[in-house]
Amino acid sequence: MQKTDILVIGASAGGFVAATMGKSMNPDKDVTIVRIEKQTLVPCGIPYFVSPGVNSDKNIMPTDKAFMGAGVNLIIGEVVSINTEAKTCALKDGHEIAYDKLVLATGSTPAKPGWLAGTDLENVFYVPKDKVYLDKMQEKLAQCKKIITIGAGFIGVEVSDELVQNGKEVTLIEKLPHALGLAFDEEIAIKTEEAMRARGVNLITGMGVTEILGDGSVTGVRLENGETIEGDAVLLSMGYRPNINLAKEAGITITREGFIKVDEYMRTETPDIFAVGDCAEKIDFVTRKPSNIMLASTACAEARTAGMNLFKLSAVKTFNGTLSIFSTAIGNQGFGVAGLTEQRAKADGFDVISGSFQGMDKHPGTLPGTNMQLVKLIAGRETGIILGGEVVGGPSAGELINIIAFIIQNQMTVNGILTSQIGTQPLLTATPAAYPLMKAAEILAKKRLGI
Amino acid sequence: MQKTDILVIGASAGGFVAATMGKSMNPDKDVTIVRIEKQTLVPCGIPYFVSPGVNSDKNIMPTDKAFMGAGVNLIIGEVVSINTEAKTCALKDGHEIAYDKLVLATGSTPAKPGWLAGTDLENVFYVPKDKVYLDKMQEKLAQCKKIITIGAGFIGVEVSDELVQNGKEVTLIEKLPHALGLAFDEEIAIKTEEAMRARGVNLITGMGVTEILGDGSVTGVRLENGETIEGDAVLLSMGYRPNINLAKEAGITITREGFIKVDEYMRTETPDIFAVGDCAEKIDFVTRKPSNIMLASTACAEARTAGMNLFKLSAVKTFNGTLSIFSTAIGNQGFGVAGLTEQRAKADGFDVISGSFQGMDKHPGTLPGTNMQLVKLIAGRETGIILGGEVVGGPSAGELINIIAFIIQNQMTVNGILTSQIGTQPLLTATPAAYPLMKAAEILAKKRLGI
Repeated sequence: MQKTDILVIGASAGGFVAATMGKSMNPDKDVTIVRIEKQTLVPCGIPYFVSPGVNSDKNIMPTDKAFMGAGVNLIIGEVVSINTEAKTCALKDGHEIAYDKLVLATGSTPAKPGWLAGTDLENVFYVPKDKVYLDKMQEKLAQCKKIITIGAGFIGVEVSDELVQNGKEVTLIEKLPHALGLAFDEEIAIKTEEAMRARGVNLITGMGVTEILGDGSVTGVRLENGETIEGDAVLLSMGYRPNINLAKEAGITITREGFIKVDEYMRTETPDIFAVGDCAEKIDFVTRKPSNIMLASTACAEARTAGMNLFKLSAVKTFNGTLSIFSTAIGNQGFGVAGLTEQRAKADGFDVISGSFQGMDKHPGTLPGTNMQLVKLIAGRETGIILGGEVVGGPSAGELINIIAFIIQNQMTVNGILTSQIGTQPLLTATPAAYPLMKAAEILAKKRLGI
Repeated sequence: MQKTDILVIGASAGGFVAATMGKSMNPDKDVTIVRIEKQTLVPCGIPYFVSPGVNSDKNIMPTDKAFMGAGVNLIIGEVVSINTEAKTCALKDGHEIAYDKLVLATGSTPAKPGWLAGTDLENVFYVPKDKVYLDKMQEKLAQCKKIITIGAGFIGVEVSDELVQNGKEVTLIEKLPHALGLAFDEEIAIKTEEAMRARGVNLITGMGVTEILGDGSVTGVRLENGETIEGDAVLLSMGYRPNINLAKEAGITITREGFIKVDEYMRTETPDIFAVGDCAEKIDFVTRKPSNIMLASTACAEARTAGMNLFKLSAVKTFNGTLSIFSTAIGNQGFGVAGLTEQRAKADGFDVISGSFQGMDKHPGTLPGTNMQLVKLIAGRETGIILGGEVVGGPSAGELINIIAFIIQNQMTVNGILTSQIGTQPLLTATPAAYPLMKAAEILAKKRLGI
């Protein structure tokens, strides 16, 4: 039987980082990673490589080279069962691998709406992290002119926008009142909708789909109001479900929400078994309640923690709960959110105040390529601690929301921000005299003082 | 005699923020600002509006509209003396203004090298924050083909690069071994030099200028090695000196380094008088030694602190020392530095370790518009506290260095970073699986563990 010190199942972002960090921090240990896929896609890159004519080979994670460089053994295969007593994993091909430490990074799979008629029709697609499937879908989409996307979360929005930019007519349908309405506060969500519409996406919100229509192959969908929308293909982007069957069958504890239960060191309740990424339980950083956030970035943070704590624990190396940090780009505009939105804060019973400021992302704003930049901050009314933030801007919005993420993780207060220093440069940032993050904090400070 | 509750002298970034923040936090107070210039330039924007043909009117700070909106009174005039006993200021035109609180934001002026022969020749220029002067310079430069810039700090670099992009032949001469050599560690400074040279700047480093040559008007400069460089104009960008005469003559304490002495609330040693910006004393955030950093962003941070503490102090609203945070752009590349460089840390006796990681600023790196991204972190060897960082990247480098600035200001450790969460998005950021900031921290963690 093959033996390894550290065995990682799954080689997307979380598994990759768990394996390489595990090896990096334990260079004397033997590390093995098992994955099903011949090639691993950059998960967040998928929307940008589904359009016909775009070469999806360019979206492959350079994992294999990295594994070789780091001295991690790679096995292409499927683990079908775990014996937690014997500490062995059985592969589909009959091989067995004994482990000392096991990391489950089994990921997630697109949610399939059982209640929706017509999902078996030809040209109904999901967006799994599966290159073989997606390449076939890409081929089929080449024959389609009108595409209907159901579900305007990040994947639905990004895929729809990309397909439009690549010449397709796309209708994006969302049952909630707003696209990205779970991620952003309403006023920001509306700005994403405006950006999508300006780019040519036909967006329908506040409207469910009751049926996918077609005879053999898709011809359209029927909406809740009885109307039909014509289409040659339907993309279902209605969220993802954690892959937990392997863990469940091995007797590893699963939470009520259907994730593998873990502690702050990413340990499951079964000795020597860790779980990271989409399959692992999430507790929200701010609300301390279960969260169903699934992000490659979160997976990597969990994987770093697991990788550092495999053989000995260190109290300073725990994972403090999942901070939801999302960003996306629609054309030249960037959008980001970290922590609680105002609507989520209120729904969860937080007594919060918010402050928003809109400026420009360069200074002076007359410089070519300047984008509007808006920052909204949400703070606890009594403590002044920042609980969340939202950003609209240009391409720097992705790192600007990370500034807010660090502010939240450091439990900084409104005054802490106002006395902090930032760097500015005409071509790279907003003006220091009206840096929207600082101005938003100033508004919060005034609200707290009642002036 | 005119009376005002808050009087601010100087209306560039620091004065502007002191006045508007002072009004914002004290809406019942009467705020007046006095400035010499008819129009205030965006100070950091100046390099981008000096080239002939570029309309410098587009680089005017929209201060006057903001003052009107905020209810701040604006006076165009020059304060020639302060009576600290009577708490009055005399203007050049004979008017007097009585104040309750006074904020000095008198800024800085280009350093003039008295030892250098030929500075009185025609077509020898400085880069002051003075629109009238700069507009005249712009007119004169229109007649010049070959321009020599002396001093490759940020202003010298940005002005030279801009002039080259606008069709001039520019030679940039720096006495130190590297351009931006005081700001960045050598390996990063070299990358800025490569970027400048690729854009057409003729860069000479490690070489002083002994004389500006000409008969009436500039014809060139002589270098330390005896060679001469031809040129129709010389731009001297050799740093700035604080404007402290007004304060000095009023008996306000000046530091040995020639700045107005202030405490952590930005108070001078004279009651009711504050100072902010280039004219005010700086203590380095990390080394706790005097610093001569002059930045609009720092000025604004100081001005926020002053504005909040004018009438009553709050212990949580102090300014904790000047963190040097610089960024610049050369073409599509962005460069940033925050806190200590490795060379400065070692020169100041810090026992530090450093870690650098180079990746891409989008993911996958095959996406169009991807730039190399490099992050270097400097940490105390024993504590693991981050003392500095440097960044090379694309346009997001400006906010990425601000992330590091927040990390330093929160005294985060290497482990603190590694257990932190960041958000990532293909078009906006590096990959979460190899986010250079995290990988640099990982290298530091390994160095500290000796693995």
